[in-house]
Amino acid sequence: MIDKNFINEIKKIVGREFVHTLPEELACYSYDSGVESISPVMVVRPGTTEEVSKIVKIISQKNISIIPRGAGTNLCGATVPVKDCVVISTERMRKIIELDRPNLTAIVQAGVITFSLHKEAGKFDLFYPPDPGSMKVSTIGGNVAENAGGPHCFKYGVTKDYVLGLTVVLANGDIIKTGGKTMKNVSGYNLTQLFVGSEGTLGIITEIILKLIPLPKSKRTIISSFLKLEDAMKTVSTIVSLGIVPSTLEIMDDLTIKTVEDYKHLGLPLDVEALLLIEVDGDEELVAKEVRFIEEVCKKCNGKGVRAAKNNIESEALWEARRSAYPSLSRAKPVVISEDIVVPRTKLVEVMKGIKEISKKYKIPIATFGHAGDGNLHPNLLADENNENLENAIEEMFKLAISLGGTITGEHGIGKLKSRFLNLEFKQEEINLMKQIKDTLDPNKILNPGKIF
Amino acid sequence: MIDKNFINEIKKIVGREFVHTLPEELACYSYDSGVESISPVMVVRPGTTEEVSKIVKIISQKNISIIPRGAGTNLCGATVPVKDCVVISTERMRKIIELDRPNLTAIVQAGVITFSLHKEAGKFDLFYPPDPGSMKVSTIGGNVAENAGGPHCFKYGVTKDYVLGLTVVLANGDIIKTGGKTMKNVSGYNLTQLFVGSEGTLGIITEIILKLIPLPKSKRTIISSFLKLEDAMKTVSTIVSLGIVPSTLEIMDDLTIKTVEDYKHLGLPLDVEALLLIEVDGDEELVAKEVRFIEEVCKKCNGKGVRAAKNNIESEALWEARRSAYPSLSRAKPVVISEDIVVPRTKLVEVMKGIKEISKKYKIPIATFGHAGDGNLHPNLLADENNENLENAIEEMFKLAISLGGTITGEHGIGKLKSRFLNLEFKQEEINLMKQIKDTLDPNKILNPGKIF
Repeated sequence: MIDKNFINEIKKIVGREFVHTLPEELACYSYDSGVESISPVMVVRPGTTEEVSKIVKIISQKNISIIPRGAGTNLCGATVPVKDCVVISTERMRKIIELDRPNLTAIVQAGVITFSLHKEAGKFDLFYPPDPGSMKVSTIGGNVAENAGGPHCFKYGVTKDYVLGLTVVLANGDIIKTGGKTMKNVSGYNLTQLFVGSEGTLGIITEIILKLIPLPKSKRTIISSFLKLEDAMKTVSTIVSLGIVPSTLEIMDDLTIKTVEDYKHLGLPLDVEALLLIEVDGDEELVAKEVRFIEEVCKKCNGKGVRAAKNNIESEALWEARRSAYPSLSRAKPVVISEDIVVPRTKLVEVMKGIKEISKKYKIPIATFGHAGDGNLHPNLLADENNENLENAIEEMFKLAISLGGTITGEHGIGKLKSRFLNLEFKQEEINLMKQIKDTLDPNKILNPGKIF
Repeated sequence: MIDKNFINEIKKIVGREFVHTLPEELACYSYDSGVESISPVMVVRPGTTEEVSKIVKIISQKNISIIPRGAGTNLCGATVPVKDCVVISTERMRKIIELDRPNLTAIVQAGVITFSLHKEAGKFDLFYPPDPGSMKVSTIGGNVAENAGGPHCFKYGVTKDYVLGLTVVLANGDIIKTGGKTMKNVSGYNLTQLFVGSEGTLGIITEIILKLIPLPKSKRTIISSFLKLEDAMKTVSTIVSLGIVPSTLEIMDDLTIKTVEDYKHLGLPLDVEALLLIEVDGDEELVAKEVRFIEEVCKKCNGKGVRAAKNNIESEALWEARRSAYPSLSRAKPVVISEDIVVPRTKLVEVMKGIKEISKKYKIPIATFGHAGDGNLHPNLLADENNENLENAIEEMFKLAISLGGTITGEHGIGKLKSRFLNLEFKQEEINLMKQIKDTLDPNKILNPGKIF
């Protein structure tokens, strides 16, 4: 299937040092943050859109599967290889092509690390808000393919809200451009948003035009804990309904707090059902006013230990708790399945109580944290090993979220891990329509097979 | 083609009073805000998604063309009938199904008037920002199908940014739902945004889930005129680059000012090249601070008559000038073609100077106003009658916008009027991809034929 001639053809295009076929090299690309692992037969690391186009033309003629890959940090098995596939990694495509201060836009290659863009934009007093947990290693291309979120997305929106245009290599190797540098554009269909979140199944995203915003002048963090979950949620809904839009509105439940405290000894309260971490940003005076306001709301809703960080160092200390959530859980148990459900904000109490019930029923500890402002929760199922109960608990949790008007994924994607649950959320006609679009763009099904469907 | 049996079948579904075949009834649906006019053979006004589904099933079996229609206020001929077609009007689908204050969402039928939603949301201190010029008569369904904009979209984004989910009747009559009431959702492809802006060519939108935001507590309007266009644009870019985001940032050029003044006698200055109308909204103290700041920037950039409205009445008086732009121009000449180009903000001076050149070259007065903050301009070509020069001037203007990294439509759509210019903006591979998607969703090409392509 992959013979010497084929390998040499590819090497001629991208350079021999960027084509890998040794088992020890392939092993590095055999897995992502999901649980499965299969080695590809070849890894190619092109440097430009044109190189991607040329190699896709050759690979597609041979009908070989292609797995587009950024940093592989996704949590849904979206970049895990399949049998006899070629991985196309964007890791060499790290150029920030343009940072246009007056127009508040950036053009980046797909392999640019999210955090690099944050830093580079910051130098010009600009802000790229999406901040997925893996942003220090994740790529913008991967973020776009998965439509990544993050804590800041409550105020600022998710990755899709910052994508103005794309360069995409299609399954046949054709290069297309969508959108552009303008803030408004209604010319033809919105192909840009068709590719955003399509998880590499419709095309390979190679360049991205992004919207940036002016860096907020000031920010402050407030922490408050609550004996009762209901009080925490009342705080969230009161803040939102009064027209305050915090830049983040994060929640951690009791088990998350305990696990973090066990590991980090931050002095977190161990007798509470929930902890809120709220950040406001913007004009300095307005931020000060909003901090006072939020402190008051927390106290009125029976918040304990309500406290606003006085400076960035104090603020970083408060965030340490939230940032340690996933690492602490991973340390506590060998198997941690981090889920990603969303419900309308008003259903948060109901869904969190439901998760506790599911945890009891299946005797699986579930630690929940997430973005309360968005209604986007990450229940983390903890176990000593994979087992059927985990599967059943997850399915029940998904059904619960959907029954409350929610969805089975808010920012992680469907990938391989959730594809079998797609029919919980969609009617057959809806899935068929998605499949028809997939077939139209990738008739030979070579792009990231086995993902989404 | 359309016989008695067929008519009776449709009447049985929606009720006889909502099916029209008399010439005088059909004439009312024979045109939209564009220039062409063809009578349909039948107009049907269903009341529910289910009725739309049933009639589409019958019509599609006969392979008859369907023109979905809201209020017909679009400016690109997107709802103008074709020969032997049935118009499906959403005008009876005017129900605001749900206004969910705590979750900041609304669910509406497609025929709800944009302004009705604004008013209804306002009662609950909520805000639906998109505000196309025709909002007092336009429908939300039409706004979604065209991805409508408006002055407020500079700060708040366009219609697409408020669409969380859709109910759509497909070409075969199937009903599908996309998205949902949650703020985040990455489950499957983003079908929602595929239908937004698809101008009725991919499906008939019957219900819409919208995001709302808390109503800004305060707003103020500032007016300033400029002897030199460059100074007006320097004002715009200075405001934006300093991190102030006005809710509107509107510009009117000299010819627009003169025409408005001729008609309305508002006391506008007649010796200036441009006039800016800037609105800021939000927290009252912050608004006051931003007003002072913007006044200063205007003065520093040689603004004349810089003035902030002291109250809503004064503010309304200032807005009268901008609101009168299109009516004044329509009164001045029998033919007014309102165009809708967008360029990156930094290219505004260049494009406005280019438009003046084109105006001179073809001896066609062009009055330009629009949304300077977005780079979205409406050059209005004025003529006594349609002629070839108009066509040539428009084509040259489009080429100019594209050469500056812009697009031929920012908020009006392609429809029928701009379909022949699509290839100025897109490569054949890109147009082919759009056509393939169209063919996939509407294989018999019955949905709004002759539009976009």
